[in-house]
Amino acid sequence: MKAEIISIGDELLIGQVVNTNASWMGTELNLIGVEVRQISVVSDTDEEIQRAIEEAMKHAGIILITGGLGPTKDDITKKTLTRMFDGKLFFHQDIYEHIQILFRVKGLPFNELNKAQAELPDICEIIPNEIGTASGMLFRKDGKIIIAMPGVPFEMKHMMQNHVLPLLKKEFHLPFIIHRTIMTTGMVESELAEKIESWEDSLPSHIHLAYLPRPGIVRLRLSAYGENRELLEEQIAHETARLNQLIPELIYGYDDVLLEEVVGNLLKQKKKTIATAESCTGGFISHLLTSIPGSSEYYTGGVVAYAYEAKEELLGVKHSSLVQHGAVSECVAKEMAEGVRKRLGTDYAIAVTGIAGPGGGLPNKPVGTTWIAIASAEGSKAKLFRFGNDRARNIRRAATATLNMLRLELI
Amino acid sequence: MKAEIISIGDELLIGQVVNTNASWMGTELNLIGVEVRQISVVSDTDEEIQRAIEEAMKHAGIILITGGLGPTKDDITKKTLTRMFDGKLFFHQDIYEHIQILFRVKGLPFNELNKAQAELPDICEIIPNEIGTASGMLFRKDGKIIIAMPGVPFEMKHMMQNHVLPLLKKEFHLPFIIHRTIMTTGMVESELAEKIESWEDSLPSHIHLAYLPRPGIVRLRLSAYGENRELLEEQIAHETARLNQLIPELIYGYDDVLLEEVVGNLLKQKKKTIATAESCTGGFISHLLTSIPGSSEYYTGGVVAYAYEAKEELLGVKHSSLVQHGAVSECVAKEMAEGVRKRLGTDYAIAVTGIAGPGGGLPNKPVGTTWIAIASAEGSKAKLFRFGNDRARNIRRAATATLNMLRLELI
Repeated sequence: MKAEIISIGDELLIGQVVNTNASWMGTELNLIGVEVRQISVVSDTDEEIQRAIEEAMKHAGIILITGGLGPTKDDITKKTLTRMFDGKLFFHQDIYEHIQILFRVKGLPFNELNKAQAELPDICEIIPNEIGTASGMLFRKDGKIIIAMPGVPFEMKHMMQNHVLPLLKKEFHLPFIIHRTIMTTGMVESELAEKIESWEDSLPSHIHLAYLPRPGIVRLRLSAYGENRELLEEQIAHETARLNQLIPELIYGYDDVLLEEVVGNLLKQKKKTIATAESCTGGFISHLLTSIPGSSEYYTGGVVAYAYEAKEELLGVKHSSLVQHGAVSECVAKEMAEGVRKRLGTDYAIAVTGIAGPGGGLPNKPVGTTWIAIASAEGSKAKLFRFGNDRARNIRRAATATLNMLRLELI
Repeated sequence: MKAEIISIGDELLIGQVVNTNASWMGTELNLIGVEVRQISVVSDTDEEIQRAIEEAMKHAGIILITGGLGPTKDDITKKTLTRMFDGKLFFHQDIYEHIQILFRVKGLPFNELNKAQAELPDICEIIPNEIGTASGMLFRKDGKIIIAMPGVPFEMKHMMQNHVLPLLKKEFHLPFIIHRTIMTTGMVESELAEKIESWEDSLPSHIHLAYLPRPGIVRLRLSAYGENRELLEEQIAHETARLNQLIPELIYGYDDVLLEEVVGNLLKQKKKTIATAESCTGGFISHLLTSIPGSSEYYTGGVVAYAYEAKEELLGVKHSSLVQHGAVSECVAKEMAEGVRKRLGTDYAIAVTGIAGPGGGLPNKPVGTTWIAIASAEGSKAKLFRFGNDRARNIRRAATATLNMLRLELI
């Protein structure tokens, strides 16, 4: 069964909002064996919405629409759908009361715009929105299903998980698409492609490989298409195992697992604790570590030492080291790691000092120069990296490299 | 002039990569007066790529394509375009040498797959890619322009800024679309809509308003369409000024300025310094502050104090305060702010302690309970916030609320 996703909103076309909804929906639909054929983003106008729905209905059996269901005047999806499918708006007292309760719980003032959200077309099946004010709507025409959902991400996700996905699984006979993503770090795309070429060439024709690079990371995605789920899973497992023999040191996990989660799990397994000392990454590594629920089990805390004084006062870096070698140096990186480890009494500590840019580069230390250190009971060691010119990418790459150094230390 | 964006790649359809390219392109095209009519995401197959291009050519004069130009086997955009426009691949020695140099500079091994990137269709104008190996291609047909660019974000952006946007400005007579985004924080969408209803109703018909909510923030976007740029700018400025009289305390800036940038500019203007002490936000606030180039001018450093020991050892929080009032309390928030301010000798310090979730909630302190404190020479003050249940959203909302408290303190 094929689906198309239609995302409605001028804010998406002029780039003020990134279409994360469609990505999330694509992932979830694929997991249940619904192939997303196209994602289309169109503006909040009656004719564009109608045209996109009509076009999608030519090619797909499931049309999922998000956006344009809000209480304000620029939201017109409900009106267009009501007109397209020859319905009339009908006031629902129960939904009205649900909306009022939501406002009361959140302590927000209720107004007439919100009341209008209880009016819904009489020719649709209503999909409840337990956590928001805009109900979902399901229309049926020519054996196809058209579903409209709110564009607020957490409301849409809740509606998909609790109502839409279960409904699709029940109504359609779905084939299987199995994906497996192999997460690698430490080698660029073209070098990796050459290294695994013979393996890639030997893949059966119903298993497809894609390279998905990110700063510091290349994800390899295998997709297998067929009718027999067990057989596909076996084949994917077999091909994954063959790849693992080829590049064991580069693989840090599977299926979009985050490096910070892998590192967190290793720390938990080994009952070890970690502290951080960051200069150029400015707290990004501690943010990544603490974005994982339960990270307080192994993450004690850290220091963001931007200025010299912070490095001295909070980490005990020697003034002489800073003056003689500069803040971006092997010895300062090591002293930072040792300093925070000592103060917080953790098993390990990681430290980063570098020049993220755009300013601050020197002839012998251009923007991108970064020292990363790890301290443990056995002492400390540091490694030099040379990243690029882009501040945001440098911060991200330094964080990835730091977490990977810690991973290699832990395994 | 209307444009359509076609993003190619299975990874976008199955949601493993978020389509940030299309958002960025939408923003840039709008700024030069090119209206993006539709964004379509299609898979890496010959027939889907052809169908999407043909469909787009029915409605738009400019078709911008990204993705599928890489060196690996799943990249087929170049082949499809060569076939569609009846061309042949031709080997370019100069591009071959450029690719070799790129590999040498980066110290990466060169292989045959990369050599094939120097083969380009003979019926296109080549758009140079100074920073990458995949050249851009421009095709002309029936007065329309079709441009293919690499999908790697920084290569695509470089190509757009240096070649594609200047070319479009030169070749087309472009009307004007002026956007102004007013950034607000402190009031939810529906309440805000009611408060500014009379202003919204009085807007002229060629000026359109959209509400764009984010966690803790509502952006109000005004779009004016017309031929006379100066007149449009005047009208937008007039309407913005009227809105500013209505809700002065809620507006923190314009045109997608980041709250951390506004705060940074205020600190620079007033020559004040800041330090951070974070518990539940885990370094996210320091990451936001340091993501701004030049932040070392006002940001000295900070502490991420996750465990009790970190709060005591690095911030000097009293053990008795933690035991008597708990880590999430008014007095601990204040002691954290005062502690980091004293140790780093800054003018201001901000501190956050809360329960981000999903675990850690208590009957009298449910998940989302958050204390935020500010310390300055005049002492410290703290405020209680109650956010929701989602960890990632709580971290984001707490960071926004903290930065906004600092902003209100500074103005």
